[in-house]
Amino acid sequence: LIALDWGTTSLRAYRVDGQGAILDKISTHNGILNVADGDFERVFNELTAAWRDRRNAVPVVACGMIGSRQGWYEAPYIACPAGATEIAGQLSVINTHSGARVWLVPGLSFTDASGVPDVMRGEETQIIGELQITQSASQVFVLPGTHSKWVRVGQGRITWFATFMSGEVFALLCRHSILGRLMQDDDGSPDSHAFRRGLDYAAVADPGSGGLLKRLFSARTLALFDKLPATAVRSYLSGLIIGSEISEGLACLGAGVADGGVSVIGNSELARLYVEALDHRGVSSRPGTTDAVVAGLFRIAGAAGLLEDSHVR
Amino acid sequence: LIALDWGTTSLRAYRVDGQGAILDKISTHNGILNVADGDFERVFNELTAAWRDRRNAVPVVACGMIGSRQGWYEAPYIACPAGATEIAGQLSVINTHSGARVWLVPGLSFTDASGVPDVMRGEETQIIGELQITQSASQVFVLPGTHSKWVRVGQGRITWFATFMSGEVFALLCRHSILGRLMQDDDGSPDSHAFRRGLDYAAVADPGSGGLLKRLFSARTLALFDKLPATAVRSYLSGLIIGSEISEGLACLGAGVADGGVSVIGNSELARLYVEALDHRGVSSRPGTTDAVVAGLFRIAGAAGLLEDSHVR
Repeated sequence: LIALDWGTTSLRAYRVDGQGAILDKISTHNGILNVADGDFERVFNELTAAWRDRRNAVPVVACGMIGSRQGWYEAPYIACPAGATEIAGQLSVINTHSGARVWLVPGLSFTDASGVPDVMRGEETQIIGELQITQSASQVFVLPGTHSKWVRVGQGRITWFATFMSGEVFALLCRHSILGRLMQDDDGSPDSHAFRRGLDYAAVADPGSGGLLKRLFSARTLALFDKLPATAVRSYLSGLIIGSEISEGLACLGAGVADGGVSVIGNSELARLYVEALDHRGVSSRPGTTDAVVAGLFRIAGAAGLLEDSHVR
Repeated sequence: LIALDWGTTSLRAYRVDGQGAILDKISTHNGILNVADGDFERVFNELTAAWRDRRNAVPVVACGMIGSRQGWYEAPYIACPAGATEIAGQLSVINTHSGARVWLVPGLSFTDASGVPDVMRGEETQIIGELQITQSASQVFVLPGTHSKWVRVGQGRITWFATFMSGEVFALLCRHSILGRLMQDDDGSPDSHAFRRGLDYAAVADPGSGGLLKRLFSARTLALFDKLPATAVRSYLSGLIIGSEISEGLACLGAGVADGGVSVIGNSELARLYVEALDHRGVSSRPGTTDAVVAGLFRIAGAAGLLEDSHVR
């Protein structure tokens, strides 16, 4: 199997054997925003040439924003609940000029009680892989990022999810706001004490403390009154925003749902901050595995019958 | 009286007679961020030369960010509750080289139950003026802006206030976020229907709909599913953020406090949006008056005895 995790800013390609073990891995910055003229086929051909045979018998499966409107081909969104079987039944296929067939994983959608839709592309594959690798009994998964996802799983299928714009809001406030102008980053290392102060203020349940629009201003006033060093403003704001996401996420899930713990997908520095933040809130959490997306693509390819095909040919 | 409303981006100077009537008004862009080398005295001298007499007997009172750390002189913050009397008792004075004395209005501070301070500079003077002009019985004032203020008044004194970063968050999202990239502004005119849809989604009380970090993403997904035209994304987001501020503000105040209605200070386009948003939420609101800040400065100058002084000299 050739497995492609093709997102907005990066493209990771994996060569995988018949048991799902990774033989080769190539990481590039050829995310869909970085591909000149949208010539995805050229990027695909160059990157995987050495891995394909003449008959193009090795199946290729891709997930992520490559299947979005801005990507190679717009794959549909399928409605929750959905697991590997439902996803495998809705693959789109691109027949390239060189004769390869690239199977695209669909995105997922969920519509809330107000009729407002939510979407994901790529995260569904990570979760299916995580479930496969860890045989996790977790009901709740958190995928930190620019647009963090909280996901609920039941009997191997994604039954609900929600997107939080935490990462983007944090980046905008750091780069462009009055709060960003207060920040001094000595050496860029996070200030754990300030991070936890931010988490604590985000966790205050008293409605008199307002919501996020009000609490954000505390990063300015605490600095103004010398209650927060300029070098700690960034970490404080990070704690405040991640803590607010956790408050919102737990409220979405409802009482007790996260009592069995939460799995944080990925093993980035950001994922570690989320594990710390969840633990600080009293929610037990587990960091995720590396390359879960590969296990997900392998599982979906198997459910779609693509792995049998390649043996038959 | 020479009354100066000297903020971050603008400076408005007023010549006022002994009864508080405005005789002359000059508006400039000489806000504190736009004064070269921080030479505030030069700007002051040039702008008010024709209004001052040789003896410098005309009192000068200034409010706003001119009294901040980045301004001419850092005036203190005084703690709530505070009204005209308390403010008038804490004026700072700058003795200029030309012999004029410029009296600076202090800012106000309020510390919430979590020990987090909040601050204002300039808005306190607008509210004191508004109370003077309208003899308003309102308990609650809203001052829309980059950093909106909600203020509670009792017996002529400001007893509580809170700052919401709504205006700045909205501007950042429009200019720099993935939501901004979705926006098409046909002619820049607001879309009233989309504004109200944003207000409605912000007002949904169901915690399953999450808080602001989650709801922001709806501006993207509604557009993605063709449920919101690209030309309406900006107005929808405006409604969502103003509506979220109203939810937070009402929660801060507690049940029933706003039942007597809310006064919205100012008569800008933004103030009109807030009046519409509050009415849509079922909170009766009144738009404010023009130049309330002048009435506030006149009232404070009177309470400080500066107006009598000028007659005596």
